[in-house]
Amino acid sequence: MALRLDRLGVGPCWRALRGDYGQLRAWSPRGASARVSRLPGTAGTQSRRGLGHSPSAGGGSWLGTGLAAALAGFAGLAAAALGHVQRAEMVPRSSGARSPSPGRREEDGDELARRCSAFMTSPVTDLRELRKRPEDMKTKMELMIMETQAQVCRALAQVDGVADFSVDRWERKEGGGGITCVLQDGRVFEKAGVSISVVHGNLSEEAASQMQGRGKVMKRKDGKLPFTAMGVSSVIHPKNPYAPTMHFNYRYFEVEEADGNTHWWFGGGCDLTPTYLNKEDAVHFHRTLKEACDQHGPDIYPKFKKWCDDYFYIAHRGERRGIGGIFFDDLNSPSKEEAFRFVKTCAEAVVPSYVPIVKKHCDDSFTPEDKLWQQLRRGRYVEFNLLYDRGTKFGLFTPGSRIESILMSLPLTARWEYMHLPPENSKEAEILEVLRHPKDWVH
Amino acid sequence: MALRLDRLGVGPCWRALRGDYGQLRAWSPRGASARVSRLPGTAGTQSRRGLGHSPSAGGGSWLGTGLAAALAGFAGLAAAALGHVQRAEMVPRSSGARSPSPGRREEDGDELARRCSAFMTSPVTDLRELRKRPEDMKTKMELMIMETQAQVCRALAQVDGVADFSVDRWERKEGGGGITCVLQDGRVFEKAGVSISVVHGNLSEEAASQMQGRGKVMKRKDGKLPFTAMGVSSVIHPKNPYAPTMHFNYRYFEVEEADGNTHWWFGGGCDLTPTYLNKEDAVHFHRTLKEACDQHGPDIYPKFKKWCDDYFYIAHRGERRGIGGIFFDDLNSPSKEEAFRFVKTCAEAVVPSYVPIVKKHCDDSFTPEDKLWQQLRRGRYVEFNLLYDRGTKFGLFTPGSRIESILMSLPLTARWEYMHLPPENSKEAEILEVLRHPKDWVH
Repeated sequence: MALRLDRLGVGPCWRALRGDYGQLRAWSPRGASARVSRLPGTAGTQSRRGLGHSPSAGGGSWLGTGLAAALAGFAGLAAAALGHVQRAEMVPRSSGARSPSPGRREEDGDELARRCSAFMTSPVTDLRELRKRPEDMKTKMELMIMETQAQVCRALAQVDGVADFSVDRWERKEGGGGITCVLQDGRVFEKAGVSISVVHGNLSEEAASQMQGRGKVMKRKDGKLPFTAMGVSSVIHPKNPYAPTMHFNYRYFEVEEADGNTHWWFGGGCDLTPTYLNKEDAVHFHRTLKEACDQHGPDIYPKFKKWCDDYFYIAHRGERRGIGGIFFDDLNSPSKEEAFRFVKTCAEAVVPSYVPIVKKHCDDSFTPEDKLWQQLRRGRYVEFNLLYDRGTKFGLFTPGSRIESILMSLPLTARWEYMHLPPENSKEAEILEVLRHPKDWVH
Repeated sequence: MALRLDRLGVGPCWRALRGDYGQLRAWSPRGASARVSRLPGTAGTQSRRGLGHSPSAGGGSWLGTGLAAALAGFAGLAAAALGHVQRAEMVPRSSGARSPSPGRREEDGDELARRCSAFMTSPVTDLRELRKRPEDMKTKMELMIMETQAQVCRALAQVDGVADFSVDRWERKEGGGGITCVLQDGRVFEKAGVSISVVHGNLSEEAASQMQGRGKVMKRKDGKLPFTAMGVSSVIHPKNPYAPTMHFNYRYFEVEEADGNTHWWFGGGCDLTPTYLNKEDAVHFHRTLKEACDQHGPDIYPKFKKWCDDYFYIAHRGERRGIGGIFFDDLNSPSKEEAFRFVKTCAEAVVPSYVPIVKKHCDDSFTPEDKLWQQLRRGRYVEFNLLYDRGTKFGLFTPGSRIESILMSLPLTARWEYMHLPPENSKEAEILEVLRHPKDWVH
């Protein structure tokens, strides 16, 4: 059944979506993504203080990155690939836990219930399950991404002042699901999406062999490789051309081997895409991320800043998507706990790195020409996301993905003009120069 | 040097662009395109009257299709892939031949010069070269695509009545070049592009091995495989939501083997993408194409109609891009001459199949809601072109491609709304139904 989304406030009223889902399958990075610029000098490196990503990453794991967007949803594509889309269905309100169901009343008053009360809705995983394994990284990460989603949504809704986030809950047949929050066509924001997902199942042959290709040779258990993947993913497009677009994503992946060993890694990042360059904003954004990274090691920011510049590259234009930020994948050292603390610090830096910039510019005056340039840059954003972003492609080509959650990253509107080239020394040429030659903003 | 394009009329004033170009390289269809639906039942078939495509095509050759868009241009990407874009430069007006240069005055009055006088500008190949080989298919095809470009541009400019086509000429270092005509933001058309290109050089290892994979085993001459590729490619986006978008492309490919044998094939097609369904228009469009096909064999239209529905498929949406038309590739029988006559008939059908529809609807009244739905459909057009279209991807990932000529296919503006679903029984739902379940319009 097709659902028409009504504007829903951040409140106890939410919608649950249930779909038909496929097995997690890998999208091959050969071909289209073969030209995505690789990360020189990052493979095999480890930061001195200990935080590092797996040497097998070789310049950005497509699978980890892929999950960034694929995690956004797992409904719809299996059917789509067969020629028709099976749309999400409504699940009775009672299956949610923001207004806890009667069976969960006993949880009120405990620490977990207290934390959950601040979320946009109840976590994907049942509270009873979370309560059973409080020290498990899966629990910690799920609660952290739920918290991040709520913090970001609330901060943005407050800035917007008029529109609020819709909250869509969806479930995955094989296990898990997600919560997609979108604020669309508000006073300040053109489109703001903050999505979390927590999915589990067995890795497909294709995904497993892709991971082997990255040096992760894993022993199957009865021919299967159980995995859990979870993350929070967000793209915020403000209306005002002087308020930049921001994207962030933090994710965690676990694969269980036959001998009980668990392979795990984190990935993520946060980057800014301004229509016009504002050096003060660029410095504020990068400095806030650097301060977060510096808490965990002095080499982290420079390495992940470069990785970001290398990843968000629109090769056919010779431009980066934006002015960067940080990006990392296959982070699996020095320990699960320390890597988690780093990711948590990064996630906590999202609001302070970005929200002051939007607040500062959301009421700036602008001309129709400024708006036009913003729309052309939105076009470039679409080009990157559809042509290069491994996460988006992995998601779209994964049977069972929830398309709407993946494509919430696209702007509300975009424009392509034939042979548009800004005049020399214009403010349009100024940002292009930075997109072509990334700068160091904090030294 | 970067060029800012001024609005140029269809006249003797044109711009020549020269860039730095790369060797023709194949884009691997593995990965992203692996999920593009294949063409069941077309591989290995031959039409009864004789027209058929190579059995090795196996459901649509990525290379032939790739060339459809890659042919649009070959400048800029080689440099882009290395991290910076070397932009096109201006070539003195005298290198054109619409206003014949003094050295070519002797050509006036002959048949070739007479034909050329109707073109948007002089052909890519020097007239002296064309005159030397009047019976060569390369000459016939180049003149035919030049004629098609002029016919379509003139017909559209007449309908628009206000805006006219800019004419950009560009050259390719290794040989050949192209002519890109664009009308943007006119009275009737949002963006209309008609591009031709004629390129030659040596096939890269990658391209040659891709072709071997399609059954074309070719003997290299001193390790090289000289090729010539040419075609006309066009996408027309009108402003009025009741006037549909149209795309067509006709192309010819030749590869020369060591023993002097020449492999050759044609490809092409023409398809319609309406915002709202108008059955009368759909019947007119398909009937005109069918009549063109029927002149060359009764089985051609049904086969190429189905191929079109299969090719223009947005898998993650479970929708076709539009209501189809015809599509074919690897057409190499019954003879070069007959295949050419078929392609010529198809090219001649472009204006009568489409222009009456635009004329009929370009002044239709419409609501803001109609415009919004058009913009959402434009978004789907972008999704298909960037995620699935082998031509676009081949072009963008080919070093030396002229990006602006490839991306002229994108609409001026597009829109993505989260969870937009039209109400049941609406006219938006009506077109979606046809995009999900293609119809037979002529029986």
